[in-house]
Amino acid sequence: MTKQPILALDAMGGDDAPLIVIEGADIAVAKNPELKLVFVGDTQQIKPLLAATRYLQSAEIVHTTEEVAPEARVSQALRAGKQTSMWKAIELVANGEVEAVVSAGNTGALMAMSKLQLRMIEGVSRPAIAGFFPNSAGQSCVLDLGANIECDAKNLIQFAVMGSAFYRDIYGVGTPSVGLLNVGEEDQKGFDYLREAAKVLNLERLGVNYQGFVEGSDITNGSVDVIVTDGFTGNAALKTAEGVANLFQQSMRQAFSANLMTKIGYLLARGGVANLRAKLDPRNYNGAVFLGLNGISVKSHGGTDAIGYANAINVAVNMVKQGFIPEVTATIARANQILAEEKTLSDDE
Amino acid sequence: MTKQPILALDAMGGDDAPLIVIEGADIAVAKNPELKLVFVGDTQQIKPLLAATRYLQSAEIVHTTEEVAPEARVSQALRAGKQTSMWKAIELVANGEVEAVVSAGNTGALMAMSKLQLRMIEGVSRPAIAGFFPNSAGQSCVLDLGANIECDAKNLIQFAVMGSAFYRDIYGVGTPSVGLLNVGEEDQKGFDYLREAAKVLNLERLGVNYQGFVEGSDITNGSVDVIVTDGFTGNAALKTAEGVANLFQQSMRQAFSANLMTKIGYLLARGGVANLRAKLDPRNYNGAVFLGLNGISVKSHGGTDAIGYANAINVAVNMVKQGFIPEVTATIARANQILAEEKTLSDDE
Repeated sequence: MTKQPILALDAMGGDDAPLIVIEGADIAVAKNPELKLVFVGDTQQIKPLLAATRYLQSAEIVHTTEEVAPEARVSQALRAGKQTSMWKAIELVANGEVEAVVSAGNTGALMAMSKLQLRMIEGVSRPAIAGFFPNSAGQSCVLDLGANIECDAKNLIQFAVMGSAFYRDIYGVGTPSVGLLNVGEEDQKGFDYLREAAKVLNLERLGVNYQGFVEGSDITNGSVDVIVTDGFTGNAALKTAEGVANLFQQSMRQAFSANLMTKIGYLLARGGVANLRAKLDPRNYNGAVFLGLNGISVKSHGGTDAIGYANAINVAVNMVKQGFIPEVTATIARANQILAEEKTLSDDE
Repeated sequence: MTKQPILALDAMGGDDAPLIVIEGADIAVAKNPELKLVFVGDTQQIKPLLAATRYLQSAEIVHTTEEVAPEARVSQALRAGKQTSMWKAIELVANGEVEAVVSAGNTGALMAMSKLQLRMIEGVSRPAIAGFFPNSAGQSCVLDLGANIECDAKNLIQFAVMGSAFYRDIYGVGTPSVGLLNVGEEDQKGFDYLREAAKVLNLERLGVNYQGFVEGSDITNGSVDVIVTDGFTGNAALKTAEGVANLFQQSMRQAFSANLMTKIGYLLARGGVANLRAKLDPRNYNGAVFLGLNGISVKSHGGTDAIGYANAINVAVNMVKQGFIPEVTATIARANQILAEEKTLSDDE
């Protein structure tokens, strides 16, 4: 019942594009032999790299020499636009020629171009960026990581619905648990719109496995699968988490290189340390998704390597295989129906 | 020119009170022999513990058997109120009998009781909770960590002024660098009130060493000394950072206890690992302060140990010695003057 995925890759997006894109693609195809990939970008650069791969020697290329500058403002990127590898890769999804796009390019441009070309799912008021964090139980999904700096109750409810479907499709968890990020777990805490959202999320017929308010520490402690918040707070939490992780890694390197004794200690302990690194390796959590668009658009970290890029491709592959778009379209329609009824209910009070 | 500090300690606040309070106080006095401490709480519990200390055998006790429950809502705590050790300890500051109060009790209650008794500094519109984080250069101060879930430009400007004075007094940095937390470093990012605040913070005569917008990762990368944000975002960032730190520590323990080899490796490397632990040890960053109140009120983490508690006492001691309250009162008055002039300027445009 699963679909054979066909994906477009923005071959020119990312710090070490197109090399990393193509090496990552080769790893992804090794894992998913049925996967078809279309590379969008400069044929002259892409072709020799494809020739060096195991599985992508005859992969299709859609040629263009233009690309979105990594630091370009969204408005600049859109003006430069339609001949860029990013635009053309998304266009393949919009035209129905492929089922998803992956890019490691400029996030704002990818968001804007994806929104313009794929449009929103009927009934979704705002899209959200969803991404994964390691936690002590496995991994959590947090959204919104920065698409909307301001959100209302309806946005957050829709994020909870979409985030649940996303987590289910990626990790095969039937009814992922969901928490709403707040400054405390008590019901009376935080903004009015958080309490309004909580009231609806608590409705059993909504089908969201809502667990209540959670705090920033719940992102990594495994208490819930999906954490819903506005894009300002989500972005600050994401960057803070990355910063703390960097500080730890840097401090760990210093700790082990302090003297001969610690270096020998490291050599002996490196099996354990390697496990730790693997568990917390950001490459394993690479691949953020713009949820709410009527098509699958996955953002890879710009500085990732081939393994990280392959992971972003896998996120897209899982979404295609599990039929994410029809699933989320149906659940959003049902949620909006309930929201409309709720409106009537609370007007009657 | 420095003052001899006299502090009141809420001896009954915190998970292991009064034991930890008194052990922490003993450590703090060992470091600051001129320090005088008044213990507020149950004499029957406090007296035998003081007898076991090196430096506090004859310390003063203000007796009360009532205390604020750790999980009490603020409204409950205030009703139960005036006979509690927390209230009475703050009262000693309000009456001018001591110069600062430290409590490891209920944060919300401490904030509310401190605000009621100490009142705000003239011209401060909102108080903020300021706390410290380790970073790769030393430590950063972040505020607001949760006093106000919503902030406007004026609040943030005042937080920047107060946070600078606080950082200066604790770490002896003449003009600490300040950043405004946002979802990106570009000028056009974020909310209008962030851009308004940035405009004023950029004025040289304000005397704030403002460096521009920063992101969550800047909390730990050492790019600025003071990070200013609203209490909702600050609280989420704080808890997220704590969560990531916990996940790392837990994973590190697992890594080193994986097998005999990793255990031996740990034994050899433990000197380096101990340095890492010390650097990132939350006890060294214990002691959050309610800035904007007309008196010094320091919150210790409820679950800290004697070393952590001693650190919270040291924060209060430094603020007293450096004359924080008169300093910040003067800088706030000057900032408000500039803000008022700015208002006229922008009306003239």
